[in-house]
Amino acid sequence: MKVAKFGGSSVADSIQLKKVGEIIKKDPKRKFIVVSAPGKRNKDDFKITDILIRLGNAFLNNDAFEEHFSTVIQRFREIIEGLELDTSILSEIEQSIYTVLNANYSNEMKMDAIKAIGEDSTAKILSAYLNSLGLQASYVNPKNAGMLVSNEPGNAQILPESFSKIYALREEDGILIIPGFFGYTEDGQLMTFSRGGSDISGSIIAAGIKAELYENFTDVDSVYSVNPNIVDHPKEIKTLTYREMRELSYAGFSVFHDEALIPAFKEQIPVCIKNTNNPECPGTLIVSEKAPDEKCVVGIASDTGFCSLYVSKYLMNREVGFGRKLLNILEDEGISFEHAPSGIDDISIIIREKRLTSEKENIIIERIRNELHADTVSLQRDLAMVMIVGEGLVRTIGLAKKATVAIADANVNIEMINQGSSEVSMMFGIQSKDLNRAIQSLYSAYFE
Amino acid sequence: MKVAKFGGSSVADSIQLKKVGEIIKKDPKRKFIVVSAPGKRNKDDFKITDILIRLGNAFLNNDAFEEHFSTVIQRFREIIEGLELDTSILSEIEQSIYTVLNANYSNEMKMDAIKAIGEDSTAKILSAYLNSLGLQASYVNPKNAGMLVSNEPGNAQILPESFSKIYALREEDGILIIPGFFGYTEDGQLMTFSRGGSDISGSIIAAGIKAELYENFTDVDSVYSVNPNIVDHPKEIKTLTYREMRELSYAGFSVFHDEALIPAFKEQIPVCIKNTNNPECPGTLIVSEKAPDEKCVVGIASDTGFCSLYVSKYLMNREVGFGRKLLNILEDEGISFEHAPSGIDDISIIIREKRLTSEKENIIIERIRNELHADTVSLQRDLAMVMIVGEGLVRTIGLAKKATVAIADANVNIEMINQGSSEVSMMFGIQSKDLNRAIQSLYSAYFE
Repeated sequence: MKVAKFGGSSVADSIQLKKVGEIIKKDPKRKFIVVSAPGKRNKDDFKITDILIRLGNAFLNNDAFEEHFSTVIQRFREIIEGLELDTSILSEIEQSIYTVLNANYSNEMKMDAIKAIGEDSTAKILSAYLNSLGLQASYVNPKNAGMLVSNEPGNAQILPESFSKIYALREEDGILIIPGFFGYTEDGQLMTFSRGGSDISGSIIAAGIKAELYENFTDVDSVYSVNPNIVDHPKEIKTLTYREMRELSYAGFSVFHDEALIPAFKEQIPVCIKNTNNPECPGTLIVSEKAPDEKCVVGIASDTGFCSLYVSKYLMNREVGFGRKLLNILEDEGISFEHAPSGIDDISIIIREKRLTSEKENIIIERIRNELHADTVSLQRDLAMVMIVGEGLVRTIGLAKKATVAIADANVNIEMINQGSSEVSMMFGIQSKDLNRAIQSLYSAYFE
Repeated sequence: MKVAKFGGSSVADSIQLKKVGEIIKKDPKRKFIVVSAPGKRNKDDFKITDILIRLGNAFLNNDAFEEHFSTVIQRFREIIEGLELDTSILSEIEQSIYTVLNANYSNEMKMDAIKAIGEDSTAKILSAYLNSLGLQASYVNPKNAGMLVSNEPGNAQILPESFSKIYALREEDGILIIPGFFGYTEDGQLMTFSRGGSDISGSIIAAGIKAELYENFTDVDSVYSVNPNIVDHPKEIKTLTYREMRELSYAGFSVFHDEALIPAFKEQIPVCIKNTNNPECPGTLIVSEKAPDEKCVVGIASDTGFCSLYVSKYLMNREVGFGRKLLNILEDEGISFEHAPSGIDDISIIIREKRLTSEKENIIIERIRNELHADTVSLQRDLAMVMIVGEGLVRTIGLAKKATVAIADANVNIEMINQGSSEVSMMFGIQSKDLNRAIQSLYSAYFE
């Protein structure tokens, strides 16, 4: 059994939903379907969820909300008419909005219930559409699906007892259409996950029913091995491990909302990223483990906007607590950091530039000079991080050589290397101005 | 004006002391002479200070101490006779030992005073010998030299007000011979520095008189660029910065007791390591700053006996305080560590193997699994660290390439790279079994 989740672009209009119908029909294993709310149809379009939020805010502030209401209804009307469905669903959607607006909920809870209407309505529409195609399909409310969550409006966490309840859904007949993004507390109150939470719902359902595959339908064919804005037509990644995906998504790859994957990760469910607009393309598969012969470099990620705070002091490594005191100063000043590699008498702290204003910079440098009596304190801005990612990296003789040769060939100075702390990545710090050159040279070395 | 410090092997017998006399005579700038106690004349010999400690312990325990007493006196007698000096000095030394033994001191203070007799007597003998050569020289007791120290027997610390008192010594006539290893508290009690403390005395005097050079006479021609047990006849290092020396001495180079150099470091006094047995050899110069054109790789240090504790957990970098909790477990179990480089979802902790018994290993791994719910915890033993040291390392394009190519050419896998945290070194972790091969290949790349 598979779980298929369709994102906002896949359910944006009736044309897209017809593709979704085809995809579901094609594979009888696609029994569990999770949907987002309709997203943008083009780049100037709006997302239904954003309009619902405006509607909710207007209503709660006693402002006029009717325009937002009709925008939402108009969008759903177009979808329902495009799919040639009975318009009774539309009345049901209208009715559900009024029910929520007039419910005796706290403002926070009312907001959550309004936001959830996009996914909920889409699930009802898709279910009706599949029926119209002659498929046995039914809408399942998350409450009936067993999705119990904590009482944290807008940031609900799944409760562990949910998974066995969800497992029972395997026994239901036909295709089950479940709206993403929300669950219910033990006393029956609707709560949403954090934004982008349909990925979370899909991952929870996949873990709960112990799916053989969790398919995540988006609008890209696959994950690329390098940023296509830097290298033309880069190779597609066929298979990624969870760890590789994490490293890639840290440094610039927005593959996925990776926290969403925790439930699937824990049950070792493979995840496939596929394209609703090109479903024959195999997509990118995310797995727990790779066979040894598949272990090689899968991608090169990069991100700019880092700086490095360098502190040196003669005999630093004999001074108990120096590092801790240094990090305390940063914490005091509210600066979080990424890494803090240390030498013998020096330490470099890698910080995202946006977190360090020049005012804060001066305060921190002064404090380190005065309180820690450092010999040198300096800050280097405009750094970029390059991550070469692949399982088995640490076990390959000559791997660092390949990377350092490629970077030197591009005439780029390496400011920092961090290798070996991670088994699946090697990190280089270079100057931002050199980034494209370095990436292009690395891509040639590893992929051409 | 220069300060020349002569170590134990340089004053071990009258033959060596005659070389010391020649060296002092040769350069009139050598006005301040600091001496150790007589050391070993051959590898089966004893050091005077060790015998004095035995003497002191025996006396304080009411055991027979006469044998140790006569061993000390016999050694000094041979030196005095070899230098053809008046034996009245010997009576003076005998007398000073009895005075200390019978003084109304605490046991700790008495022990300090006994230990100091080796240096004190050597200074008196050298002074008399220089006089016999027709040089104007005088013994200066550290109390009269202005060496005020804290009241910490066996671990005295210099007091800041000493330096201006020492500066006044510049006005004294002739050559001043000052015993190393001890100073006096403000109320006049003798206190010794930590063992090897003659280096500390020399460095303090050099800082106090603002010497143009602090010469440290030993029994080697210079510091080598790599361990001579791994590479035959390696290049000698002509000039080192303080920072380079620190990095080298951390990873296997026992150049110097580097804490001893703090006073000289603070005053930016250049230090020269020279050979009493070959004073014409220029030795190795340690300086604060190097000219840009001298900035290159100066040495390759290495050390074995490390292990790496690897911990990974999905989404570790989102888990606030994970690293801190991990380090707390180590602290709880009394394990100190060297470095803790971190990736996104993993961290490696480099620990000296001798600090981690297999029993402790099991406890720590269990605790990390159970308390931190890590996905993977593993320990890799038998690691060696290789440090490539040189000012300006970070600014050289292709430098990491040179190193990684050399290591790959030796068919050695790199387990870890730490570059950029230090401005003067690049660190590689490899397996101990590969160490010699890697070092030989690196030496060829950088020095041949």
